[in-house]
Amino acid sequence: MIEKKIVKTTELQDFVAEVLHQNGLEKRQAEITADVLVSADQRGINSHGVARLKRYIDGLKDGTIRSNPSVRIVKETPVSLVIDGDGGMGQPVAFDAMTKCIEKAKQSFMCFASIRNSNHYGIAGYYTLMALKENLIGVSLTNTAPLVVPTFGKEVVIGTNPISIGVPAKDEKPFLLDMATSTVPRGKIEVYARKEEEIPDSWACNELGEPSTDASLILDNLINRRGGGLLPLGGGKELTGGHKGYGLSVAVDIFCSVLSSGLVGAEVYGQKGEPAGVTHFLGAISPEAFVGSDEVRENMTHYIRMLKNAEKAEGQARIYIHGEKEFEAEEQNREKIGLERVVFETLNLLGKPFGLILSNLSDK
Amino acid sequence: MIEKKIVKTTELQDFVAEVLHQNGLEKRQAEITADVLVSADQRGINSHGVARLKRYIDGLKDGTIRSNPSVRIVKETPVSLVIDGDGGMGQPVAFDAMTKCIEKAKQSFMCFASIRNSNHYGIAGYYTLMALKENLIGVSLTNTAPLVVPTFGKEVVIGTNPISIGVPAKDEKPFLLDMATSTVPRGKIEVYARKEEEIPDSWACNELGEPSTDASLILDNLINRRGGGLLPLGGGKELTGGHKGYGLSVAVDIFCSVLSSGLVGAEVYGQKGEPAGVTHFLGAISPEAFVGSDEVRENMTHYIRMLKNAEKAEGQARIYIHGEKEFEAEEQNREKIGLERVVFETLNLLGKPFGLILSNLSDK
Repeated sequence: MIEKKIVKTTELQDFVAEVLHQNGLEKRQAEITADVLVSADQRGINSHGVARLKRYIDGLKDGTIRSNPSVRIVKETPVSLVIDGDGGMGQPVAFDAMTKCIEKAKQSFMCFASIRNSNHYGIAGYYTLMALKENLIGVSLTNTAPLVVPTFGKEVVIGTNPISIGVPAKDEKPFLLDMATSTVPRGKIEVYARKEEEIPDSWACNELGEPSTDASLILDNLINRRGGGLLPLGGGKELTGGHKGYGLSVAVDIFCSVLSSGLVGAEVYGQKGEPAGVTHFLGAISPEAFVGSDEVRENMTHYIRMLKNAEKAEGQARIYIHGEKEFEAEEQNREKIGLERVVFETLNLLGKPFGLILSNLSDK
Repeated sequence: MIEKKIVKTTELQDFVAEVLHQNGLEKRQAEITADVLVSADQRGINSHGVARLKRYIDGLKDGTIRSNPSVRIVKETPVSLVIDGDGGMGQPVAFDAMTKCIEKAKQSFMCFASIRNSNHYGIAGYYTLMALKENLIGVSLTNTAPLVVPTFGKEVVIGTNPISIGVPAKDEKPFLLDMATSTVPRGKIEVYARKEEEIPDSWACNELGEPSTDASLILDNLINRRGGGLLPLGGGKELTGGHKGYGLSVAVDIFCSVLSSGLVGAEVYGQKGEPAGVTHFLGAISPEAFVGSDEVRENMTHYIRMLKNAEKAEGQARIYIHGEKEFEAEEQNREKIGLERVVFETLNLLGKPFGLILSNLSDK
């Protein structure tokens, strides 16, 4: 069991925002970014939470992330936006784009934004949730650093490119899909490497492009660019559907990059010290475009209950709906969040130069 | 090697249309349906081609498919349609819906149609191709008979619900994804059962909900409704990402059924002799909503070439783009198509009562 430090959620949020602000990020941008990061921890997705703060600070320092970008709308129609993030933080540009998509969807039934020249935007599901709070359907896609090998390849030219789709329900939690299009994210392989355990052969391939169960080898190859990398959802063979995960990853990059004329595939995070060129695609759809909000929400409840009530596999007590585990975690972490000791300590180190201290409630 | 009968493509198309028409289907509907079926064979997707004609004829005879439906538009906005197919053939209602989406996308940048109360519509990619021919981005989704088990379940409550997305390119074939959200379709398991070969354990689960490699057992269980069925893309465990395929399948059903108030999940094909209640979601998006048609097509070409030129895995000569194999098959089968002997004979049996004969060019 990993030792946890308990912190107050609101204090964590203020602390993260202030550290970002002290590192040159404008106040409102810092607050949005802090909210996205803390939300990830609240929802139990610690890999994308405040544990990443140091990386963002490093990015602000080395020029990968611009602290004062001139974000501009390149094109606008009643149902679409093309936005240039000018190399700034991903969270605020994505937050503002989704806010605008929501406004426009209320006017024109739907709106989608393709965003170029941005950075890592945290959990894809944060922006889908923004639409759900307005009883709209939300879509959130992003490309990422190239970490994934296409079917029959051995070179990482596509990202883990996640897909998030959210649909509101009545008297049930909404459906909130948020999935990488690779079988697993890189972090999962790191966990297995630390434990010195073999990974399933649908997770990654070696420098020859052959499925491998050696977690340390995979990571070593990735770091030293020797070839190989993560495999798409479905694994390394057509036999097990790997070409499908590959296709989904490409589709995500098309919506994010091809439609915005942004960096694509292997180009993302291509130059050290240059903006990473991450791209996003966000959208809000009003159920009023179809059978209407009440009916859509009732239909969702009917479908969700059908799935939950289906017969369980031997030894299983429950069938989950996507997002359900995360909504339960959020409920539990509303007031307080448990952080890994190393994360807690790193945060305090980042705060120290500015006299900022994050308190540990577990010692009290 | 399976013996093939060579037939003339145009003759096959006229034959299939006439057989459908003689079975009560109005002429225009019969011609559209024939075109969708023959296109599947041309594109090498024989599982969804004229081999299915008998099933459609049976459906027209037993009432699963209504030959003279009163298709109606339930709701229309500048960017959306809700259509009730009144239990008719899937192909014509989907064809007409996509035609209308294309028209409206040219006016309003995009349009999506959610269609309830339809039937099997053939290959999802046929409708995406319609958009591609107009230099638009196409989307085509459908639910299907429940054949797939959700993660931690053992009862088939979701479909193989395919996703098709098409995006035009310049000087390269378009990207055309067309994939079931299960690891494989049922037909693949039938092939292995006939060969008495074991299937990979990410394809299907037994009556306890446990992954199984026994193709005959899986089919037998499905036919006798003993439990178990196909597994979502990613297989039967969260460890290998099975919950992701499950989530994609649910997302497809939401767009098709929840947005149109159609039958959903386990309800599809619920009553023998009643319309099947299949639902679809079709859409066309103009690149002019984003950076514009020329730029999008050039960006696609750049991305496609990056993928194709990536380093190949040991022993592989080529990285494919989605749809590429099918475009090559289409080129090859433009004039003539090879049909399996049993398919050729079944077609002639279906034509016989009406004095229709399909000629075999291979004997000449």
